Amino acid sequence: MPTPFRVSRFVEFADTDMAGIMHFSAFYRFMEGAEHALLRNLGFSVFSEAGGEVITFPRVAASCEFQSPARCEEVLDIDVTVERVGTKSVTYGFVFAHNGRSVATGTMTSVCCRIPHGGKPVSIPIPEAMAAKLRALADA
Amino acid sequence: MPTPFRVSRFVEFADTDMAGIMHFSAFYRFMEGAEHALLRNLGFSVFSEAGGEVITFPRVAASCEFQSPARCEEVLDIDVTVERVGTKSVTYGFVFAHNGRSVATGTMTSVCCRIPHGGKPVSIPIPEAMAAKLRALADA
Amino acid sequence: MPTPFRVSRFVEFADTDMAGIMHFSAFYRFMEGAEHALLRNLGFSVFSEAGGEVITFPRVAASCEFQSPARCEEVLDIDVTVERVGTKSVTYGFVFAHNGRSVATGTMTSVCCRIPHGGKPVSIPIPEAMAAKLRALADA
Amino acid sequence: MPTPFRVSRFVEFADTDMAGIMHFSAFYRFMEGAEHALLRNLGFSVFSEAGGEVITFPRVAASCEFQSPARCEEVLDIDVTVERVGTKSVTYGFVFAHNGRSVATGTMTSVCCRIPHGGKPVSIPIPEAMAAKLRALADA
Repeated sequence: MPTPFRVSRFVEFADTDMAGIMHFSAFYRFMEGAEHALLRNLGFSVFSEAGGEVITFPRVAASCEFQSPARCEEVLDIDVTVERVGTKSVTYGFVFAHNGRSVATGTMTSVCCRIPHGGKPVSIPIPEAMAAKLRALADA
Repeated sequence: MPTPFRVSRFVEFADTDMAGIMHFSAFYRFMEGAEHALLRNLGFSVFSEAGGEVITFPRVAASCEFQSPARCEEVLDIDVTVERVGTKSVTYGFVFAHNGRSVATGTMTSVCCRIPHGGKPVSIPIPEAMAAKLRALADA
Repeated sequence: MPTPFRVSRFVEFADTDMAGIMHFSAFYRFMEGAEHALLRNLGFSVFSEAGGEVITFPRVAASCEFQSPARCEEVLDIDVTVERVGTKSVTYGFVFAHNGRSVATGTMTSVCCRIPHGGKPVSIPIPEAMAAKLRALADA
Repeated sequence: MPTPFRVSRFVEFADTDMAGIMHFSAFYRFMEGAEHALLRNLGFSVFSEAGGEVITFPRVAASCEFQSPARCEEVLDIDVTVERVGTKSVTYGFVFAHNGRSVATGTMTSVCCRIPHGGKPVSIPIPEAMAAKLRALADA
């Protein structure tokens, strides 16, 4: 089992909806924020550059299951695991908890893309320096 | 095959991110908006009342796969299908397209809950009037 | 008095917060959406091109005063007025109402900028074709 | 001059728009987050209770002027000052900066309200314990 990378995230008033709980779409923003924190922790940016090109990671899939509501002013622990590193894509797993209570679990697959100026994303192999570090996390 | 319920949705500047495309979390807001439009079309509100209690539908799961980017000022056609009506939950399917181009497909399961004042959601059977109409859509 | 340009906007569940009303930050998104609708109505896009350069309108100021809450599933009428057209900037006024009830009033000043690839916005004179149409609205 | 209360805030990818900078509506969310952090620092919650009633602070006005763009992965310093404490309302001032560069300045007026179950906000005097602490900040 790989050791998860943990980030903590505060639920703000603006994240809630009229049902009195965090809106479900915020979980996807939080997953992305945790993914980006993991990448920064490896020394990479959300928009990294390799070989003079902009490299970024749009999603091809994201899912989440919700076990219990997250509420305003709660701090969520988000554990990110690198589940699979393919040639061009990375799949992450996410576990949300609050004080040990299960809140949600999710998964997200991001594809390495270069974005030509004004053009559409083109999938490319993950740069080896980044892939090696992600694989190390997946195998940890 | 049930006939889908179609809503059209305009992609706004505020829905985009620095990659120049609609942020993936917006697809979940759009799925919810389409679900609520379908419920209104059946004569029900997002926060309906039955027997003096507030009835609403928090999600237990939502997933989406992304085939091509949605861009600012595009109109997305969102086809909603009622895939399954359980005693307490409804599963919807979503197909996003722009001018016939596949953009994304998603699924979402919402659970019927009553919310006591100040309390946490408690799952309950879907009120029969609503369940009957949802089943009719699923079987259409 | 110039004739306002009117857009209608539906308040969605995702726009609300735990106080049971539309979150105040949504009013700013709605003002931007109305501004962009006005520009499209004049034949211009949010990201228009003139002379081969991308032209867009970041804000330098935005304010809003709130008279009464907007609620889920309400349709807001938003009246946009072009209040002032300067050499490089446009100031818009906004009046939000629901069924004749005052909801909010706002103002927003956007500055015409060209954005060099990868660079920061540089303010420029509004292209004359656009300025002329905006002035016509302001003087209407 | 009162000593400002400072919070730091990370600009996330999801806060950006296709112009490559933080969307202007995010500044209002950030102002609210800073206001709530200040209240928590005084020992109060976003939804505090006094005399068995829910007390919260909807806005009656918010404005912001933007001096320079905020970008993804920047940490913004947000200095909050209590500018005025009225009987029922509080006015805050905000200064956003990044590494000493001016980013934006804002102001926000929030009104103390009790919210009856299912009803609309009713403005009330700020509870004295809270008002005293806010005045102390304003006079500091």
